[in-house]
Amino acid sequence: MKKIAKESGSVYCNQGAWEAFRDLLKVLNPSKIFVLVDQNTEKHCLGVFQHKSNITAFETLSIPSGEAHKTIDTCQNLWQDLSAKGADRQSILINIGGGVVTDLGGFVASTYQRGIPFVNIPTSLLAMVDASIGGKNGVDLDHLKNQIGIIRNPKAVIIDTQFLETLPSEEIRSGRAEMIKHGFISYEGYLRKSLSFKIEDKDITENLIWESILIKDTIISEDPHEKGRRKTLNYGHTLGHGIESYFLEHKEKKPLLHGEAIAIGMILETILSFQTQGFPEDVMRNYCQEIANHYPTPHLSEKDQEEIIKLLIFDKKNSHGKVRFVLLNAIGMPKIDCILPNEEIINAFKYYETYFAD
Amino acid sequence: MKKIAKESGSVYCNQGAWEAFRDLLKVLNPSKIFVLVDQNTEKHCLGVFQHKSNITAFETLSIPSGEAHKTIDTCQNLWQDLSAKGADRQSILINIGGGVVTDLGGFVASTYQRGIPFVNIPTSLLAMVDASIGGKNGVDLDHLKNQIGIIRNPKAVIIDTQFLETLPSEEIRSGRAEMIKHGFISYEGYLRKSLSFKIEDKDITENLIWESILIKDTIISEDPHEKGRRKTLNYGHTLGHGIESYFLEHKEKKPLLHGEAIAIGMILETILSFQTQGFPEDVMRNYCQEIANHYPTPHLSEKDQEEIIKLLIFDKKNSHGKVRFVLLNAIGMPKIDCILPNEEIINAFKYYETYFAD
Repeated sequence: MKKIAKESGSVYCNQGAWEAFRDLLKVLNPSKIFVLVDQNTEKHCLGVFQHKSNITAFETLSIPSGEAHKTIDTCQNLWQDLSAKGADRQSILINIGGGVVTDLGGFVASTYQRGIPFVNIPTSLLAMVDASIGGKNGVDLDHLKNQIGIIRNPKAVIIDTQFLETLPSEEIRSGRAEMIKHGFISYEGYLRKSLSFKIEDKDITENLIWESILIKDTIISEDPHEKGRRKTLNYGHTLGHGIESYFLEHKEKKPLLHGEAIAIGMILETILSFQTQGFPEDVMRNYCQEIANHYPTPHLSEKDQEEIIKLLIFDKKNSHGKVRFVLLNAIGMPKIDCILPNEEIINAFKYYETYFAD
Repeated sequence: MKKIAKESGSVYCNQGAWEAFRDLLKVLNPSKIFVLVDQNTEKHCLGVFQHKSNITAFETLSIPSGEAHKTIDTCQNLWQDLSAKGADRQSILINIGGGVVTDLGGFVASTYQRGIPFVNIPTSLLAMVDASIGGKNGVDLDHLKNQIGIIRNPKAVIIDTQFLETLPSEEIRSGRAEMIKHGFISYEGYLRKSLSFKIEDKDITENLIWESILIKDTIISEDPHEKGRRKTLNYGHTLGHGIESYFLEHKEKKPLLHGEAIAIGMILETILSFQTQGFPEDVMRNYCQEIANHYPTPHLSEKDQEEIIKLLIFDKKNSHGKVRFVLLNAIGMPKIDCILPNEEIINAFKYYETYFAD
C-alpha cells in the first residue's frame, strides 16, 4: 500500500486508498458531506467517486472549469452555497478535480467559519503529483497567480490513477512538467524517467507518481512555510508564472496550460543555470531539447520578453523589489534566492529563441 | 510595563508599548510598511500613530467605517491595492482601528500571498479588550457575522489607551460589554468592576483593560482553536449575534453596536442560566438589571423573537442542526455546549420583556 501517514494530512495512492477514505469519514463523523467538482469532473469523475467511495449522502457543489474561474467571486458563490445548505464547522468538503478545484476548494474550506476539514481527490496528473500535496491553497487575483491564499493541509489526499484514463493528452503533458521539475531538483535518474514514461504503462506511471509525491513530501516536511528548501520546488516557476500570466492576459495568443508554461520556464531557467551557475552546457542542451520535443515552445518577441520580465516583480517569491530565482549548479543541486541582472534574463530568452523556440 | 510576550503574538499596553513596536519593526525589517485605517481612525488616530511611532515612510490604505463594509469586496479592494503598491511577502500591514479594521485587516494580511505579517493597534475599547486579541480574523458574509475567516495571530498588539479619549460614549459602552462578559465567566469581583468603572479614571481603566486581556489570554492559550474552553468566551454571543444580525437586516430598527447586542444576549443567557442551570435568581436579577441600566433594551415582539431564533442555526458554534449555548452554573462557572428546546429560549425572551425591556 502506498501511504504517507501524518497528522498534517495523509496521502494514499490506489490500493487501499478508498478504504482509508471511508475510515477517515467514520472517525470525523461529519454533520454533512459536501463534494466540490467542476463541469469536467462532475461529468467524468463524480460517478467513479460514488462507486468507489460507496458514499451516497452528500451535496454537490459545482463550479465552471478552468483557471479563469479560480477567483474570489467563485469562492464567494461557494461560501454562500455552503451557508444556504447548512454547512457547519463539523461539515467536510471533498474536492474532486485538478489543481483549480483542489487549490480553490482548500481555500474555501480553510476560511469557511474559520476553517472546516477538507479532503483532496486529485483527478489530473498535475494535481496528483503537485497541486493537491503540501497545503498551498488559494485563488488568482486578476492575472496574479495564487495571489490570495493560505497554507493549510487537507485531512487526506486520495489518489486513484484510474481518473487519468479520461484525461486529455495535453493535461498529461501539463502534469508531467511538475514531475520533470522534481527530477531537476532531486536526481538525474528520476529526471530521465519523468521525460520518457508512457501513461499507458499503468504500474510504471503509478510508481513514478508516487516517487514525485515522496520527493515533494520530503522537501515540504522539512520546510512547510517556504523559508528555505521548499523554495526549490519553484524551479522553472519564476519565468513560468510570468509566461503563464502573460498568456492569460493576452487572449489573442494560444493559451498555455500551467505545466506547459512551466516547461518553457524550466528551459529558460536551465539556460540561466548554465549562464550563471556553471551548469554543464551539454547537459542543459540535452534536457532542454527533450523538453522542447514534448512541449509547445512558442516564439517570444522582444516585446513579449520585456512584458514577461515586468510581471516577475509581482511573483510571491520576490521581495524588496528583487526577483529571486531557483537555479541549478547541477541536476539535484538547486540554489535558492539567486538575483540576476535583467540582461542575463534577456540573454536566456535569446538562447531559447535560437535553439528551442518553434 | 504591561506585556505578554509570546511567539504567537505579543501584547503591549501603554508604557513601553511604542518602543516595543519600533524594536519589532527593526527585527522584521519589512520591505514596505502599509497602514490600514478607516475614515474615523484616519482622522482621529493616524496623526497620533505617526507621532508616537515615529514612523514616516509608509503607505496608507483606507476603508469606509462600519460593520456594513466588513465584506469580501472590501478585502478584494485591499488585495488589489497591496498588489498595485508593490506589497511583497516581506511587507507588513499595521491595522489601526476598531474590531472591523483589526478583524478585516488581519484576514487580508493572512491571505495576501499566503500570509504576510501584521500588527494590530486597536483604537476602540472593544478591540483593546477583545477583537484584537486571540487571532480571530475575518469578514461577514451577507448578514452572517464572521462567516469567512481564519485564526492567525498578529506579530504584536500595541495598546495605547490615549486613543480612547476621542471615542464616542456608545463605543465605550460597546467595549464594556466584552469586559462584563469576561467578568461573568471569570469572577464576580471583575464583573462588578467592569460594570462600575468610569472611563475618565485613567489608571483604573488601564488596569481593567489589562485584566480583561489577561483573562482572555489565559483562556485562548489553553485552547487556541476553540475545541473546549475558548467557547466560554462566546457567553452572551449566541443570542447576541442573532440579535445583531437581525438588527443589521432590518434597517427600520435603530441599529445596535456589537457590544450593545451582546449586552442583550447576556441578559437573555443569564436568564437561561437561571431557568436551566440553577444560576441563582437574585444574582441574575441584580446583574441583568445593572446591564439594563447601562444598555438599550429594545422591545422584541414575538415575531422578532421567532426570526432571531431562526438565525441561531447559522451561528458558527453550532453543528449537526443544534444550537449550542454557553451557560453559567454560577458566576465564573461556565458550561459549554448546552442544547436547549426552543420553548426555553422563548421563555427567556418573555422574562426579558417582563422585567428588562424598555
